[in-house]
Amino acid sequence: MEEQIKSTHNRSTNKTGIIDCDVHPYPKNKEEIQSYMKQPWRERFNSGGRGHYGNPVHGDRQDAKPPGGGPSGSDPEFLREQHVLKYGIDHCILLPRAFCNLLPDPDFATAVAAAFNDWLADTWLGKYNGDGVFKGSITIAHQDPLAAAAEIRRWAGHPHFVQVMTDSGARAPFGQRQYYPIYEACAEAGLPLAIHPGTDGMGINIQPTPGYPTHYIEWHTCLSLGFQAHLVSFITEGVFERFPGFKVVLVEGGVSWLPALMWRLDAEYKALRYEVPWVKKRPSDYLRDHVRITSQPLERPDNDSHLLQTLEMMDAEHLLMFSSDYPHWDFDSPKLAFPKLPEPLWQRIFKENAKQLYKL
Amino acid sequence: MEEQIKSTHNRSTNKTGIIDCDVHPYPKNKEEIQSYMKQPWRERFNSGGRGHYGNPVHGDRQDAKPPGGGPSGSDPEFLREQHVLKYGIDHCILLPRAFCNLLPDPDFATAVAAAFNDWLADTWLGKYNGDGVFKGSITIAHQDPLAAAAEIRRWAGHPHFVQVMTDSGARAPFGQRQYYPIYEACAEAGLPLAIHPGTDGMGINIQPTPGYPTHYIEWHTCLSLGFQAHLVSFITEGVFERFPGFKVVLVEGGVSWLPALMWRLDAEYKALRYEVPWVKKRPSDYLRDHVRITSQPLERPDNDSHLLQTLEMMDAEHLLMFSSDYPHWDFDSPKLAFPKLPEPLWQRIFKENAKQLYKL
Repeated sequence: MEEQIKSTHNRSTNKTGIIDCDVHPYPKNKEEIQSYMKQPWRERFNSGGRGHYGNPVHGDRQDAKPPGGGPSGSDPEFLREQHVLKYGIDHCILLPRAFCNLLPDPDFATAVAAAFNDWLADTWLGKYNGDGVFKGSITIAHQDPLAAAAEIRRWAGHPHFVQVMTDSGARAPFGQRQYYPIYEACAEAGLPLAIHPGTDGMGINIQPTPGYPTHYIEWHTCLSLGFQAHLVSFITEGVFERFPGFKVVLVEGGVSWLPALMWRLDAEYKALRYEVPWVKKRPSDYLRDHVRITSQPLERPDNDSHLLQTLEMMDAEHLLMFSSDYPHWDFDSPKLAFPKLPEPLWQRIFKENAKQLYKL
Repeated sequence: MEEQIKSTHNRSTNKTGIIDCDVHPYPKNKEEIQSYMKQPWRERFNSGGRGHYGNPVHGDRQDAKPPGGGPSGSDPEFLREQHVLKYGIDHCILLPRAFCNLLPDPDFATAVAAAFNDWLADTWLGKYNGDGVFKGSITIAHQDPLAAAAEIRRWAGHPHFVQVMTDSGARAPFGQRQYYPIYEACAEAGLPLAIHPGTDGMGINIQPTPGYPTHYIEWHTCLSLGFQAHLVSFITEGVFERFPGFKVVLVEGGVSWLPALMWRLDAEYKALRYEVPWVKKRPSDYLRDHVRITSQPLERPDNDSHLLQTLEMMDAEHLLMFSSDYPHWDFDSPKLAFPKLPEPLWQRIFKENAKQLYKL
């Protein structure tokens, strides 16, 4: 090596005196740079920790990797065994993670969404779904609302697509008018729109905090803040008055914040309804007809009675639906997620609310 | 007028055929444009509703305008009569609204902050403060942390300045390192830092929602989200470990969101503390030593017991301090803001917590 370097130096005989002020040297691979790093940075450099927020420990349950290979959550038969059969689950609402709504190019984003939908229909909702246990979500790229509406209409009436889904990561609060073609198509198809976190502050999406967080724990904790802003926007913009059949499902954005937010918004409405005359009811009065919220990651205060009180405050009986987030790191087990619930409340949260919403 | 216009036309005799493609016509005054508007836009155009979020009804209590003239809250004697004497208040913690932290130029912002401090020291804390009922806040421009620290040191030891204050509107979450000179100066002077809403998303400040809200009701409701992000940042960045004497007061950002946020952050910490090893305790365990929260605008659910439960969940006994927000539109009266509280809790919230924090 040393010799080769020398010989290359010697080749440089036709000296001109030129100075080039912008040349980029690349490491041969990331290990070259890692060898100059200490832990935990060496390990962090391995994972997705560059340029976006990634779980620095691990993003998936370590026991969820299918024995036949492939990433966690990629083998329908193993998922049936490890999750559906183990807990005796009737239906899993599937939310694939296409990450299309962080892409700058709306045509590309729409193509990614469509490919995910075709794939899900063929596989999980098709050949692996003889008993209909799997119900799917239509992925859309909300950057192009008209294309997203067309994608919804392409699948309307499919027996196993039960909702539309998009990420909470966005460039504008979801009550704003550019999104209305999406809501019109959802209402027309009788499909709720599920909002799921995960691309907030990534790609072209705005970070819904006062500047970018530093750590994953901070970014991930604050995901629930973006959900709150979207919900306030839906209500104050009058979306539920404009599209009376339109429903929203807030997935994986936390639960216990709902009462405080609604108390605050109800009070503001009392003083400021002059500004939003299209909001015909108290803000919190829209929830039962238009909003559902999924349970995971369920907050678990030290004192169980605090959670039970919060479930009462938030009208969990009508608004809350169980979810596990399988196979992610913060999975909630159907057996352990909640403290002991009164049987009728358990029935509503674990079965009835979803049965009614998704017409199962 | 018609004749004059004609004569001006006639003056244009030296025709050249020139076409100028950028000329700006101005209305003589805003009324000229308003005459072409219908309500409510005509009225909105009058107020501060252009370019920032302003209350479209009114920002101040209509009965708080001093009889001798001047804006609400500008006459110490009238404030004493209408507020201090009426409710038998011992001390008012004064938070002037300098709006300096939305200014792009840090030198100008620092000069505005200093002028507000000199004015407050001369007047409200000086010649109008024989009995010491008024206690003040040192305004700082956090855009220039070193200058802000110098401003804090300029007033440290003053008998009537009891805290430092800044707005929640910012370009980075407050746990981040650029702000540390401010926290060092606060800890050194034994002064807590009060954070107050009001310039979020204005001037150079980031809007802490997924894009700009449309209406004041939406923007104002979501102010509490920025507070939550700042608190998560303070804790996860380890500010309270680095500056053990440093305390934060969250003023006017809501109250009832605290339990849900802490439950969520505590759970995240359990799984992700590897990422933030400088956080030595459960996040919620930092609150009692380092964080206080003021009551207004206090959420008021229909069911008083829901609020009382929330006060228990949030450790209101140690964390909550009464505030009225006089003379603003959403003023909370000491007599009406809360439902009937147990006497010891009332004593803590209305007196003891503030006495201890501010050493009154």
